[in-house]
Order: sequence, then structure tokens, then C-alpha cells
Amino acid sequence: MIFTCEKQKILEGISIVQKAITGKSTMPILEGIYIKAKGSTLTLIASDMDVSIQTLVDATVIEEGSIVIDAKIFGEIIRKLPNSSIKIEIIENQLLKITCEKSVFDVVYMNSNEFPELPQINEQLKISVNQNILKNMIKGTSFAIAQEETRPILQGILFEVQNKTLNLVALDGYRLAIKSEFLDNDMDIDVVIPGKTLIEVSKILEDIDEIVDITFTNNHILFNLEKTKIISRLLEGKFINYNSLLPQEHKLFVNVNRQELQNAIERASLMAKDGNTNLIRLDIQQDNLIITSNSQLGKVREEISIKLQGEGIQIAFNSKYLLDVLKNMEQNEVVMKMTSGISPCVIEEENNENAKYLVLPVRLMR
Amino acid sequence: MIFTCEKQKILEGISIVQKAITGKSTMPILEGIYIKAKGSTLTLIASDMDVSIQTLVDATVIEEGSIVIDAKIFGEIIRKLPNSSIKIEIIENQLLKITCEKSVFDVVYMNSNEFPELPQINEQLKISVNQNILKNMIKGTSFAIAQEETRPILQGILFEVQNKTLNLVALDGYRLAIKSEFLDNDMDIDVVIPGKTLIEVSKILEDIDEIVDITFTNNHILFNLEKTKIISRLLEGKFINYNSLLPQEHKLFVNVNRQELQNAIERASLMAKDGNTNLIRLDIQQDNLIITSNSQLGKVREEISIKLQGEGIQIAFNSKYLLDVLKNMEQNEVVMKMTSGISPCVIEEENNENAKYLVLPVRLMR
Repeated sequence: MIFTCEKQKILEGISIVQKAITGKSTMPILEGIYIKAKGSTLTLIASDMDVSIQTLVDATVIEEGSIVIDAKIFGEIIRKLPNSSIKIEIIENQLLKITCEKSVFDVVYMNSNEFPELPQINEQLKISVNQNILKNMIKGTSFAIAQEETRPILQGILFEVQNKTLNLVALDGYRLAIKSEFLDNDMDIDVVIPGKTLIEVSKILEDIDEIVDITFTNNHILFNLEKTKIISRLLEGKFINYNSLLPQEHKLFVNVNRQELQNAIERASLMAKDGNTNLIRLDIQQDNLIITSNSQLGKVREEISIKLQGEGIQIAFNSKYLLDVLKNMEQNEVVMKMTSGISPCVIEEENNENAKYLVLPVRLMR
Repeated sequence: MIFTCEKQKILEGISIVQKAITGKSTMPILEGIYIKAKGSTLTLIASDMDVSIQTLVDATVIEEGSIVIDAKIFGEIIRKLPNSSIKIEIIENQLLKITCEKSVFDVVYMNSNEFPELPQINEQLKISVNQNILKNMIKGTSFAIAQEETRPILQGILFEVQNKTLNLVALDGYRLAIKSEFLDNDMDIDVVIPGKTLIEVSKILEDIDEIVDITFTNNHILFNLEKTKIISRLLEGKFINYNSLLPQEHKLFVNVNRQELQNAIERASLMAKDGNTNLIRLDIQQDNLIITSNSQLGKVREEISIKLQGEGIQIAFNSKYLLDVLKNMEQNEVVMKMTSGISPCVIEEENNENAKYLVLPVRLMR
């Protein structure tokens, strides 16, 4: 194998595939990047078995071939080389020679035939979404995936297509996040993708209008970008019927400025850190929302203007869960829908049905 | 005590004095900021006994008084308040009321008479330096202070005034850093300041031409800026006679571009990380410097152009020590002065006598 390529181009490819290397595998070969030189293209692949990423890089291939090289050391070498053309070739003794201007590295490589093959994906069941939209949907839900491993299915994000709508859903027992988008497609799909994988996928997606094709099989999901393919294993099992968690009716509606509410809760939670309860109390009155909290450190009272429909109530929350939701919303006018101090609070953006959040209150001892 | 002040002004004051709070004290009062309201000024003080910082903040004082309040919680509250006027007053039950727009905090405070007094400093023995120059001198030497606690004096920086020159010197047994500056002053001073303190001082110093007055006593040093005073304890004991470590003569002189050398060493050290030795070899030839390194990972060869006076030699270094020096130098043309593969290497900037560095080579087994 002998090829030359531009430093910036191969570095970009390394940065993309490296996101699949999580260090959780015990197989040394999975710490490596598979590189195949053929035609006028390098194919780079990295995998941790749960997720595999493949990308293409332009190159001048002088002799075709393939190797696997430790991703960390290879990435560091390429990153530190001058911004110039790089020549990479196999020399004797399992060594890869990397030459760039006056720098010469001889680095140990691994045999490419030990690298696991990519799962075969039949691209029949396919939907298409804009990259920026999918990126935004992942950002708007991934904060709500469960951190504990007690219910593995909740560490995933539900990827659901039904009624010409794509829904991404995450929940952890305390809060629920749903992002939706119209899809001109009549398929019925319902898979759960590991949350951590999807967060890595969102880092590769760009904030542009271009399409990403998404293909589903029984065990895998494939995200197909122009030069990059990301294949993730699906989580086994059935996701929770999240629709049953959403209240059908609400008795009161609070319209409030998102940034003002977020700032007030952030301040109130300063006095709620003691003992890690993050407990804040909301006293919802006709034109005002009073937020209070207290601990050994002292106490705090915040007041913000609201528009209330319905009767005022008192309700308490873990401030972290409210803040996570508010920080991940986009519009500035939001509406909180509630019924009582012990029933779920639904938070939505005004005039936007594509984002819906639910937070459970904390039941107070009286 | 009752006063009002602008959020930004008191926040700036808190940020300055907070640098004295290191959390290493076991006295709860030293986790606090002392605040005294008098005339039209707040005096803020924080201290960890080794270093004390005092700064002044403009305020409208309605009732004079003083308190101590936990620095962390007070800083977080002020930081998160709206950018507006803040009213602070003592109310009943050891509580401090902090009001800003519609936010009200009641926070527990501590009695100010338990706060230690600042050391008395007689401002007779005084020198004056520009803030930006002193900041630069600290940056250029502090990287070389000893990390181990085996010789406490080497955890300090020598602050020496002699022959109308201010010298800052740090060394750790492997390398030595000296920064010098002309001083129109005939005093003879020789004190050692804890390195960590001086690094905090340098964060408060600004990159401006304004003067900082420095006063010395037997046990303390005082840095007097316009509104801020920093008092540090001195380290006890005598600093090493660093002049005796500097070779009087050199047999070869290597002129080299600093950035090129730094880049080549950074790349070479990628292959030197194995086993944490950071060992790189320099083969100094007539027009070229060849840098090599090898480990289980592979090997590397770097070549850069130099101008050599004298006979070439081979010499080995811990790459970290060379890199620390090169990263902290300012000019782009540097000269390395050596005699043999086992004697110290002195590194200076071309045409600048105010910075001098020394790195010991690693003796190689043959």
C-alpha cells in the first residue's frame, strides 16, 4: 500500500471515524482505524461493535492495499504534521512509513483482515431528513435519556415514524422529551437507538440543509451522508408507551418568557444545592410566579411576570429537570400546562407543536 | 450595614479577592470574603494566611458596618443576578439580605471580628515595575518551579534585586529559568515567594503599562496596584546560588527558528511517550539538526535547518523540558549554547539578554 493525500483531508476523515472509538472494547484491533487505499479513494472505518463509522477521503493511490493503525497515535501524528502533502506506505517489519516534508515516522500497524466487517445493510426501508433538522432533534431529546443502567431501554432514544411524522423520544422516569417533524412517508417504524451513539452521530451531522438518508433493519440503523456512513446497533426491547404518560387535559396554562424563567430558577437553585435535593417551590399566582427555595445556606425568593389561565397552584420541582428542558428549548415564549401540584407539568413552545416536554413535580411533605 | 452598588463592580472585586481562597485552610472563616462598608467604599479582603488580597469597590453606603460571607455562594449569587444595582443589608438572625430587581436572597453571614487582620507592612523598601512587565516575567519563569515538595524552597520563585536589575529565577533540578529587567534602583533584595501565590498575582496583573509598587519586609512582600493590594508570605531559607549552575563558556552555538524546533520536538515526542521517558535525541550537524526518538510504537526522524558554530555533537533530552522552555520564549530566533552531550544546554533569545534558560541533558547508556 502506497498513497499520498493532503493532511487536512485525511485529518478530517480521522476526526469523523474516531468518534466510533469509545475505548470500551477490549479488542486492540478496535482501537485502530481501518484504512483501505483503492482507485483514487481511501476508505477509513472505525468501530466499537455498537457503532461503526466509514468515511471516504480523496487520495493519490500508487499501490492499493489496506492496514489498521492505532487511532490515537495516528491521529496525533497527522494532526501535528505540517499542512502539506503526506506520503503513507507499508515498509518491512509491519511498519507504516509516514513522510511529510522533513518528518518521517515508522509506526507499527495491524493486519486489516482482523478488522470486523461492517454489518450488511439492505437499503430498502429508507427515510430522508435534513441534517440540520436531525441534529436539532437529537440535541433536543438526548439530555433526557436515563443515566442509570437499571432500565437499559431508557438509555436509548426512540426513533419512531408514524402518521407521516418522525418522533424522537427520550425519558428517564422524571422527565420526557419529544421532538417531531413532518415526513412525507407512510412507513411505520419504531426502533430504539443507544443514546450515546446518537450523540456521536449528531456531532458528525452538519448544520446544513443537506439530506441524510436513514435505513432500518431488524438490528441496525444506517445514517448515510454524502461521504460518510454511520451504522448503529439497535437496543433490544420495547420502548415505554410514552403517549400514555402525557396528560390528556390540563387545568391551568402559564405563559412565560423562557430566559427570565431560566435565570430565576438558576438563581433559586443556588440555595437548593444543600443536600443535593435541588428543590424549588413555584407559587403560581394570577400575574406572578413566585419561586422560593431554602436550605442551611439561607433562602431566596424570585418573582417573574406570567400570564395565567386557570386557578393558581403551588408545585415543587427538582430545578435541574426544569433547567435541562428550558436550556434545550429554542423559542422564547413557552407555555407550562398543569393540573395540580402532584400531576405532571407539560412544557411547550408557543405556536410550535414539534417540541413537547414533561417534568414530574416533587411531592412535598406537608 | 446597608449599601448599594453596581453588580459589575462588586463582581469584579469578588473575582480579584477570590484568588486568595485556595480551600487549603481548615478555618471556615477563611472560606469567606470580608466586606467593610465605609465612606463611599467597600473594602473586600480574602486570605488563606499565605496570601491576602484586598481590593476597593465604589458603593453608596447607607449604614457603615462589616461582615464575612462565604465566597463561593456569595460569588455565585452576585454572578447570576441581573446586571443592575444591588442592595445589601444586615437583617435579623445573622442574615444578609441581597436584593436586585425582583430577586431577594437571605444568606447566613459570619462575624467580621473573627477574620484575621492583614499583616502590617511598612512601605519603605519599595521598587516599582510596570504591570505588563512583571506579568510577563512571572509567566516566563513560573513553569520551572519544582512540583515535588522535597525541597520547599524550589517551589518558590527567587525575587532578586541587584546591580540595578530585577531577576526572577525558578529551577527544579532539571531546568532553570531567569527573566531580568533593568531597574533604576540601588537596593539589594533577595527573597523567595511561593510560586503558586505568584501565579495568582500574575492573573490579577493586567497587560498595561501602569505601575505596580512592590514592598518588602522580613516575612512578606506587598504588591500595591491602584485599588488592589496583594500580600504574600515569603518562603524561609536561602535560594540556590543559581549563578554557579550557569556554564561560563560554551563550545558550540546553534541558531534555530523557535517555532520550527518546537513543532519538530512535539512530533518527535509522540514516539517518546511510551514508558513516560519523553526521551529524544538531537544529532547536531553542520547545517542540520536531526531529532530522533523511538519506542515500541515505532520511530521518528525530524530534520530542521540550523546555523552551527563549533563542532557538532549528539545530545539527548527529556522533550517536556525543552518544550516548556520553547513555549515560554517570545522571540522567534533562539540560540542554544552547549559544550558536550553531558553538560547543560543554555537557551537564549537572539539579541535579548533578559531571558535565559538552562536544561540538563539526559545521559545515555552506550
